Amino acid sequence: MVKDMKNHLIGVDIGGTSIKIGIFDFEGRLINKWDIPTNKLNHGEDILHDIYNSILERTSFDDVFGIGFGVPGPVSNEIALNCVNLGWNNKHLVEDFRKILSDENMIIRLANDANCACAGEVFQGSAKGFQNVAMFTLGTGVGGGILQNGTIVEGVNGLGGEPGHIVVDFLHKFPCNCGKKGCLETVSSATGIVNLAKEKLTKTKRQSALRNFANFSAKRVFDLAKQGDQLSIDVIDEAANYLAYAMSMIALTTNPELFVIGGGVSNAGEYLLNKIKDHFYSYVNPFIRDQKIVIASLGNDAGIYGAAYMVKP
Amino acid sequence: MVKDMKNHLIGVDIGGTSIKIGIFDFEGRLINKWDIPTNKLNHGEDILHDIYNSILERTSFDDVFGIGFGVPGPVSNEIALNCVNLGWNNKHLVEDFRKILSDENMIIRLANDANCACAGEVFQGSAKGFQNVAMFTLGTGVGGGILQNGTIVEGVNGLGGEPGHIVVDFLHKFPCNCGKKGCLETVSSATGIVNLAKEKLTKTKRQSALRNFANFSAKRVFDLAKQGDQLSIDVIDEAANYLAYAMSMIALTTNPELFVIGGGVSNAGEYLLNKIKDHFYSYVNPFIRDQKIVIASLGNDAGIYGAAYMVKP
Repeated sequence: MVKDMKNHLIGVDIGGTSIKIGIFDFEGRLINKWDIPTNKLNHGEDILHDIYNSILERTSFDDVFGIGFGVPGPVSNEIALNCVNLGWNNKHLVEDFRKILSDENMIIRLANDANCACAGEVFQGSAKGFQNVAMFTLGTGVGGGILQNGTIVEGVNGLGGEPGHIVVDFLHKFPCNCGKKGCLETVSSATGIVNLAKEKLTKTKRQSALRNFANFSAKRVFDLAKQGDQLSIDVIDEAANYLAYAMSMIALTTNPELFVIGGGVSNAGEYLLNKIKDHFYSYVNPFIRDQKIVIASLGNDAGIYGAAYMVKP
Repeated sequence: MVKDMKNHLIGVDIGGTSIKIGIFDFEGRLINKWDIPTNKLNHGEDILHDIYNSILERTSFDDVFGIGFGVPGPVSNEIALNCVNLGWNNKHLVEDFRKILSDENMIIRLANDANCACAGEVFQGSAKGFQNVAMFTLGTGVGGGILQNGTIVEGVNGLGGEPGHIVVDFLHKFPCNCGKKGCLETVSSATGIVNLAKEKLTKTKRQSALRNFANFSAKRVFDLAKQGDQLSIDVIDEAANYLAYAMSMIALTTNPELFVIGGGVSNAGEYLLNKIKDHFYSYVNPFIRDQKIVIASLGNDAGIYGAAYMVKP
């Protein structure tokens, strides 16, 4: 098969539990996708071979133009600096996968998974058609990604688009996994929303339906807020305020065309979006009066779309 | 003269009082520079003609490869959106100057003046050789610029690198010219340092040599701080803390290789730099342990260097 005939892209999203793999055409249409488990034995040394073999079972590499990888950790200069969940440290992924492939010409790219998700939304999701985008992924933690002129901002330490660890809360100062206190992740992630709610329940005697539950999730807080539970409303409002504040910093530094809000917490949709907008403008007026802010649309597939986006011709 | 013979770049920095013009070779060596006054009559309609005539008096445009302009206001898509100090609103500068030149092929570029200053430091100043840089210009206000992969981040509203209006102070809440309160500019500019000092003098009975002066400048506060005046030390420490905080946000979003601190306040040199570093790491550890932070070196010429940088081949 001659090189001109190559017409597929492969996107691989390596997570701590499973690895998602997708085959795309050049326009970003998903042709096939599947998962394999992540084998973390021996510092994850079999992961790349597993991926290679799994792809070979479904397609020949002859018609693959490029393969992109997203990994759960910072990336700089094609090296995965530190992926705790995989057991990888300074993993030369691009070099290593090229050896397995024995193909000098294959285009191989590597990025952080949250950066990939942002690229994915640009490829085929809510940010399609935009070139300057910032994304916040609100899950257990807060991830993010920034695309500038259509290219992922990687950052010198692989910390491009890592807003989850901007310190935004000088009041509650919940401890963060990173060792600091008050990071965005401690107040605007699913965990952060529960942090805020539990503190309000403990430190005040305010009534709330949340008191009926020994434990509860961020989704519960959203559900009760939408039903009019005032304490829950205040919690969502506060979490949205911190997020809007972090967004305002980006609005005044890279000033993106569009913000995308993704991750499990973004399932709250318009309700969350409206709360974010209320606060956002208080931080950026009079400079910005019409900022586009949307909810992500690709869900858990954003990573494979973005990994493929990186290697498209 | 054939096109290959073109070997000069022109950088123009349009300010509210004077216009700086520089002629450079392709390596960024300054060949000639001069100033002309800014004629603000009739909404600044003569400014571009004045620049054209002034350049013609010194050189032929035949050997000019490109002309870059820096202006005191936001720029988007080659349009100066709003330059209050010049009387310009939606000024199509590139188009207008091309008409005056009657040259379809001349490379003409336009950027915000603080963004230009950052580009200038990259061209021939403290940031020479770096491609991913963020600059803060601490003068009467706080300006800034971001270069990503060697290109100015302009931003969709022309607000790329506009950190002076990030809200960082929720304590003093000094009013900002922009209408908000607590912007970085209200606490870390020369004006901001005086704001902080005056508040400490008014709201406490602490001793300070500053009390010997009815009015004082930021430089006075720096001088006294260096002499051991504790209140002045605390003021500089607080101003540096707010600046370091804003820098930390950029460190976790575009994650630049290098920060450059410029403007009049940066004349405080190492003293200021050390204070900034003390606070910076408290916001970004454990992610960043060795951030390059330097003082700008081109002073008021940074703008013409950066304007020329934009049009170099």
